[in-house]
Amino acid sequence: MMPGDAMDGFFCRTGTANLFSLVFERIYRTSNILSSGAIIKRIIDITELALRDAHQSLIATRLGIEDMTGACQELDEAGYWSLECWGGATYDSCIRFLNEDPWERLRTFKRLMPKTPLQMLLRGQNLLGYRHYQDEVVERFCNKSAENGIDIFRIFDALNDLRNIESSVRAVKKAGGHAQGTISYTVSPIHTTALFVDQARRLQDMGIDSLCIKDMAALLKPQAAYDIVRGIKEACGKDLRVHLHVHATTGVTLVSLMKAVEAGVDCVDTAISSMSLGPGHNPTESFIEMLEGTEFTTRVDLERVHKVKTHFMTVLRRYSEFLSQVTGVETEIFKSQIPGGMLSNMESQLKQQGAGDRMEEVLTEIPLVRKDTGYVPLVTPSSQIVGTQAVLNVLMGRYKVLTGEFADLMLGYYGAVPGEKNPDVVKLAHEHAHKKQIHCRPANLLKPEWDKLRSAALALTGCNGTTEDVLTYAMFPQVAPKFFAERHEGPRNLGRNPATGESETQPAEGHQGAITGPITYSVTLSGRQHKVTVTPYQ
Amino acid sequence: MMPGDAMDGFFCRTGTANLFSLVFERIYRTSNILSSGAIIKRIIDITELALRDAHQSLIATRLGIEDMTGACQELDEAGYWSLECWGGATYDSCIRFLNEDPWERLRTFKRLMPKTPLQMLLRGQNLLGYRHYQDEVVERFCNKSAENGIDIFRIFDALNDLRNIESSVRAVKKAGGHAQGTISYTVSPIHTTALFVDQARRLQDMGIDSLCIKDMAALLKPQAAYDIVRGIKEACGKDLRVHLHVHATTGVTLVSLMKAVEAGVDCVDTAISSMSLGPGHNPTESFIEMLEGTEFTTRVDLERVHKVKTHFMTVLRRYSEFLSQVTGVETEIFKSQIPGGMLSNMESQLKQQGAGDRMEEVLTEIPLVRKDTGYVPLVTPSSQIVGTQAVLNVLMGRYKVLTGEFADLMLGYYGAVPGEKNPDVVKLAHEHAHKKQIHCRPANLLKPEWDKLRSAALALTGCNGTTEDVLTYAMFPQVAPKFFAERHEGPRNLGRNPATGESETQPAEGHQGAITGPITYSVTLSGRQHKVTVTPYQ
Repeated sequence: MMPGDAMDGFFCRTGTANLFSLVFERIYRTSNILSSGAIIKRIIDITELALRDAHQSLIATRLGIEDMTGACQELDEAGYWSLECWGGATYDSCIRFLNEDPWERLRTFKRLMPKTPLQMLLRGQNLLGYRHYQDEVVERFCNKSAENGIDIFRIFDALNDLRNIESSVRAVKKAGGHAQGTISYTVSPIHTTALFVDQARRLQDMGIDSLCIKDMAALLKPQAAYDIVRGIKEACGKDLRVHLHVHATTGVTLVSLMKAVEAGVDCVDTAISSMSLGPGHNPTESFIEMLEGTEFTTRVDLERVHKVKTHFMTVLRRYSEFLSQVTGVETEIFKSQIPGGMLSNMESQLKQQGAGDRMEEVLTEIPLVRKDTGYVPLVTPSSQIVGTQAVLNVLMGRYKVLTGEFADLMLGYYGAVPGEKNPDVVKLAHEHAHKKQIHCRPANLLKPEWDKLRSAALALTGCNGTTEDVLTYAMFPQVAPKFFAERHEGPRNLGRNPATGESETQPAEGHQGAITGPITYSVTLSGRQHKVTVTPYQ
Repeated sequence: MMPGDAMDGFFCRTGTANLFSLVFERIYRTSNILSSGAIIKRIIDITELALRDAHQSLIATRLGIEDMTGACQELDEAGYWSLECWGGATYDSCIRFLNEDPWERLRTFKRLMPKTPLQMLLRGQNLLGYRHYQDEVVERFCNKSAENGIDIFRIFDALNDLRNIESSVRAVKKAGGHAQGTISYTVSPIHTTALFVDQARRLQDMGIDSLCIKDMAALLKPQAAYDIVRGIKEACGKDLRVHLHVHATTGVTLVSLMKAVEAGVDCVDTAISSMSLGPGHNPTESFIEMLEGTEFTTRVDLERVHKVKTHFMTVLRRYSEFLSQVTGVETEIFKSQIPGGMLSNMESQLKQQGAGDRMEEVLTEIPLVRKDTGYVPLVTPSSQIVGTQAVLNVLMGRYKVLTGEFADLMLGYYGAVPGEKNPDVVKLAHEHAHKKQIHCRPANLLKPEWDKLRSAALALTGCNGTTEDVLTYAMFPQVAPKFFAERHEGPRNLGRNPATGESETQPAEGHQGAITGPITYSVTLSGRQHKVTVTPYQ
């Protein structure tokens, strides 16, 4: 047998080698000029997560805009492919905790980082909320997001039901944005490489501009990363950009990034080292450094990255009260497949019911419930739905009580699930919810709702009448009223002086100067609302 | 060109593929039986670091024996290749801080872990001390270590001068132990793959039983790991076992372990996840998990490992005051090549001199001083010697003042350095120290010293007259007198109750029962010494 026999197609069949190696190997061997330091390397792009998922994962999304602006110039100049900076949790946190207008935050980012594309995470038909929206709302949201500064839209659905992604992909493209279709990675008997490759092909057919594999629970092991990326490249062609988003929780995923690079991945997501690891992501600097000596490299400037690191190292000290208790690695996730956040939620649910000692039973129940649902990926909201039902099953007897959400999931109201649902449980859900099972795209059942949403939003004190404000109300109807009413008080920074423990509602010293452009406030005076733009005197 | 053309020898030329992949690929493709879960996998062995380097790196070697015994049975049954549990810092800490006899600790380990080989780290001719010892002392130490329970001796020299390793390798083999020859990994213009491979070959000629590549500063990047392991396997044959020890500090080295595995490494060092990362090591569980789906696997039982994890997670809470301030990753090390510990030492040296603001200059000076020494690896004691000289150069002018240790290093008294020394600096050292440059093995200059050491030790109050006690005195003449005098008071546990902050000099609850065998104390009564053995009532 010749060593090369086992190779076919653009990439060889197993694990580790790819044609890039061999091509560069050949160049290296046949040319002294190229071997003397001038070897052509394949560029791996990087998306920096510092401004969104990194602080969402490590300090419960509490980072105020004033603590980010100081790093923006370096981030913009460093050479990243994109800067992720917006999404459901950042939007929610802005209006719920920080009294910060998320649209104003986005405009600030765009002003301070004009060179590098800005990226957001979008929950498909759910937008940034927790229910399906009618297509007109989806279109308006995508349009306004693009208008205010988002360039790249990463669009996913918790169930991987691509029908829940379609209308946002269309809306993003109509708005001139880059639509990145996403596969939510999970592990189950039915989630084979072939299944993910097929999903990629269907996303490609939908007209996405690039593809992302999103591993929110750090379950993607190195060999699987290699196989899936290679499989997608083989099936979709090398021109379809493949991005990879992994968390670091289990400790193995920097290795998965390496194998994905060897398999042909175009871009990986990392977070600045001072805001990385634990339930967060792999450190940007480590990713860059680990490629030395290989046929791969990045465009990212380590000197600038180092300044970003120092910035967030200092900033994070002020947010210690929000810091994730999970540090180090959690490899038990591989067994339970339950993301860390879900685990702590369930523990507190059980304790509230005086059943803190029944966690082991719940951990055994979850995979069974998940199987009954047709192996949904465990990510918001499916993780909460499956977890809560498992708790109820343990406390009350299996499926004696069903939550409304679980019934909806079983009856198709969240979309199609990846596998076969347990028909007995579907029947129970039907009896419980007095609803029939549906098979269409759930949003097809929605009636036009924009005008109603608009009227309701405009009736709220402090609503400034913009489409952006209507969208805020549409997505967070519970939180928006208080936010609109208090918005004029300006952002509340939740950082605390690490030495004194004192709250710092004013921008921390050293950050004030970083806001260089105008900021617009909505000011209500004698019951009438005014738009006031404040420009720092320079 | 055929894809296979670039491959030659047992391993292919670049980076990522090896023949293993291709062979297994072929098996997988041609046999349905083997592809249905029965694929033969190559076993990668693991050395667990929990009992030595893990707590040395993370909590300044302060773990008392009572906090380790509870995990010993699981460690012994888990399927590790070896358990590292003894070395210079553990020995030092035992007698300096814990009032614990290091030999008794070793015997306890052997009693509680009879199945798995016990491993120690030995500084070659320095043994566990800070100077060269005459060969008879080396022989007696190795003999007693083997007699008391050490099976595997990992032997290294800070300068990679193999003459400093010779006599311990000989002594270990004479004592029936396994002599593992070690390469101290470093990065410099002269430290090429070829240099390390040559060193491996010379160690093999010396008769070592296995080889270790030891990367104490986490500088070993994935491609370098691949190239060196593969180079050694090609040069020394596949029967020479190659082990790899890396720290996690820079965040890239789990990837390096993966590439080393692909290159043919036989065994890697990892630490239980609850005592891993930061300046420590890669998590054992992550290493095991990351091999899933590849053609590699381990013999280690994750269920048992999980119990070990839980044990040390609980234990570590009691040692928070000693916990390393370095968490996350430090990729600046790649630039400065200065290990984290060395950096903080120098900072405090500078501050003591009222020159805390000159750190940048020192960081620039260190590589220059290191170059003048002939690119010594920066590891104890060379890191301290080079660092202190760099501080003096910045404060007093370059080489205006030389430390005695730096002069000795330049004049050959620590051994041969890897590269060319700066002759001007050698001349200065000669003038400063009034000593001539030597080129022989430094220990050749030593006269027999055992009898003198023995007399001095026996004269100390509390010395029990054993060879073990003489060795304790020989290696730590400053610390031994106090330890001998206070040994009868029994071990001092430095853990504190995390809730109350109270010191717990008595074994913590739940750990008492773990000591199941007799413990021997040396008790001095009316000036006469008695050996008292206490056996727990069972």
